[in-house]
Amino acid sequence: MRLLLLSNSIAPGYGPLEHAHAVLRDVLGDARTVAFVPFALADHDDYTKTVTDALRPVGVEVVGAHTGEPADVVNRADAVFVGGGNTFRLVTALYRHGLVEVIRRRVYTGMPYIGSSAGTNVAGPTMRTTNDMPIVQPPSFDTLGLVPFQINPHYVDTIPGDTHMGETRERRLLEFLEENDTPVVGLREGTWLRRHDDLLTLGGIEAGARLFRRDADPAELSTGTDLSPLLQTTPRFDV
Amino acid sequence: MRLLLLSNSIAPGYGPLEHAHAVLRDVLGDARTVAFVPFALADHDDYTKTVTDALRPVGVEVVGAHTGEPADVVNRADAVFVGGGNTFRLVTALYRHGLVEVIRRRVYTGMPYIGSSAGTNVAGPTMRTTNDMPIVQPPSFDTLGLVPFQINPHYVDTIPGDTHMGETRERRLLEFLEENDTPVVGLREGTWLRRHDDLLTLGGIEAGARLFRRDADPAELSTGTDLSPLLQTTPRFDV
Repeated sequence: MRLLLLSNSIAPGYGPLEHAHAVLRDVLGDARTVAFVPFALADHDDYTKTVTDALRPVGVEVVGAHTGEPADVVNRADAVFVGGGNTFRLVTALYRHGLVEVIRRRVYTGMPYIGSSAGTNVAGPTMRTTNDMPIVQPPSFDTLGLVPFQINPHYVDTIPGDTHMGETRERRLLEFLEENDTPVVGLREGTWLRRHDDLLTLGGIEAGARLFRRDADPAELSTGTDLSPLLQTTPRFDV
Repeated sequence: MRLLLLSNSIAPGYGPLEHAHAVLRDVLGDARTVAFVPFALADHDDYTKTVTDALRPVGVEVVGAHTGEPADVVNRADAVFVGGGNTFRLVTALYRHGLVEVIRRRVYTGMPYIGSSAGTNVAGPTMRTTNDMPIVQPPSFDTLGLVPFQINPHYVDTIPGDTHMGETRERRLLEFLEENDTPVVGLREGTWLRRHDDLLTLGGIEAGARLFRRDADPAELSTGTDLSPLLQTTPRFDV
């Protein structure tokens, strides 16, 4: 299985996906065509154009999943890229178009999967650690399950002196762990997870990631860390 | 109908609910007992104790809805207070305990309703404008519908110069309006909405609120504004 799960598509000081050109080339390998799933944003044509431009230097042809029957577009492509935006909107569309099963089957049989932000969220077993607003109601919070742990993209640290009374990201993830016994990797912006079969590594900028587990203190993860043991996780929800 | 919908329970420089003592007394009127619904947080006893202490100066007796059959506790009380925390956890519990119908019926027949944060979110027709993480999956996003428009508590303005790539609150609410044609009142911290039958007013600290409507620029609302026309809203979702 070949996965590249980006926290986000734009790192400070770079153009869209520019910070990840090298690893994108590596993960895409000899793939020529990429089916782009734009359903997390409202304007599918505009979003597909942005990603087409962003992936041109990587040397692949991009086809919007909305330009035909989405499942057919994904089935005909060499790789799939699920873009960011609103995760509730994305998951609703994945179910509506029968993409949950199609993507899962293709990726489990070797098709490279690229996700960014919401597209990274849905690579976990559920969307329960998304940061997004529930603007539409999907039929289920269950997602692709390409890794057995949860991911929180755009992970941000608590800002000292912040007077806002809303929960911090860390507090939100600890509340997730009150209800569910499944680890969460909080991916800071500019970082990514890369899976090649049984090997899982943390890549990207130096900021790294933060790992949250039930009954354990949160732990810092440095870029380059081998996280393969996380692939042995047995996810448990509503416990 | 008597509602007090607080953005949050703690205003900077005040103890829990202290900023709202006068309006709480006024809305509670001659109510002697308040059923407190603590289900948005994990520790119900601890949360109920905090609220009992916070409401002592207001002169009411607080009973935790978890200390008996929740619907019975609510039915026996003179008023209901739904506390903040995680809205997904709260809504899941409201359905599990049959509280959606019980609270709606009592409040529509005159029982004062106090909400704070998540408890204010659920006073709208849906929970689609909550800021919370979907840590559990409720049977429905539909909520109490005590007002016909949406509320976003803890509303925060965009911070100039913020480099974080996650969506701003305004961006999230505009995405809500891409999918739904229902106004949203973004309540800044320390503010509240008060409904007395057909009269709706914005109260609390000077910061006020921000109104988001489809096909209109967001509008600033000052404290003291009469918002009664919003009660004529016909909410429309998935449009």
